Amino acid sequence: MDKFLQAAINEAKQGKKSGGIPIGSVLVLDGKIVGRGHNQRVQKGSSVLHAEMDCLENSGRLKASDYQRATLYSTLSPCDMCSGAILLYGVPKVVIGENRTFQGPEAYLKSRGVELVIEDNNECYQLMESFIEQNPKLWDEDIGE
Amino acid sequence: MDKFLQAAINEAKQGKKSGGIPIGSVLVLDGKIVGRGHNQRVQKGSSVLHAEMDCLENSGRLKASDYQRATLYSTLSPCDMCSGAILLYGVPKVVIGENRTFQGPEAYLKSRGVELVIEDNNECYQLMESFIEQNPKLWDEDIGE
Repeated sequence: MDKFLQAAINEAKQGKKSGGIPIGSVLVLDGKIVGRGHNQRVQKGSSVLHAEMDCLENSGRLKASDYQRATLYSTLSPCDMCSGAILLYGVPKVVIGENRTFQGPEAYLKSRGVELVIEDNNECYQLMESFIEQNPKLWDEDIGE
Repeated sequence: MDKFLQAAINEAKQGKKSGGIPIGSVLVLDGKIVGRGHNQRVQKGSSVLHAEMDCLENSGRLKASDYQRATLYSTLSPCDMCSGAILLYGVPKVVIGENRTFQGPEAYLKSRGVELVIEDNNECYQLMESFIEQNPKLWDEDIGE
């Protein structure tokens, strides 16, 4: 498997281990991971640190030209907020672990020029399916429902 | 002037005083401010804590039904990321101090059902115009340019 998606899955698992929502993300620049993160709703009581946001935050203040040649990996299809962050910084490519348990505004991202690769990875799917089944209210909270 | 927009301006001024980008935001629920924030790029080295995001973060983990009857105030037109957060949580109304120095995806927000009120407030405008003139690189970084 793609080693970067594997790194995102490892983040998701770390999030699960610490009692959180199992979604992970890494930002890759010139073939190297420059930031990693996972959903921090439970751990930090955060409403904004979805996995992709935590990853961007942990990547620090990069140059526009860095974001514009980076690839963001996420174990789950990015929601409206995370998609907006991708658009703000002009990240041109997003690799998505799965979009069966949740699908963000993928068509909108594509219409704004973002390349999406859907891996439909079974481990990503199983992590979320199991989590949602066991924690439906927490999951609803995370997606504003 | 609207006391809530004034509170957002006060946040922007606090941000300026602490060496940051002068954009402020408050979240109003049932006539009361439940969260305040300002851009934290400089102060916290943050790439995700725009004023609106800092405000949402400081508001804590609210119920979906709370967001869905709240009004978000921002001294500046929300960017793609902050607009995405508004959409994620279904905030139905956004009051914008000004959109002359920067304009986010307002048409998209409207197309998704969000009510926008543009105040075209001169103090909001002056804060940003002066900041951008004196800190063009920092401003470009904040909007991914």
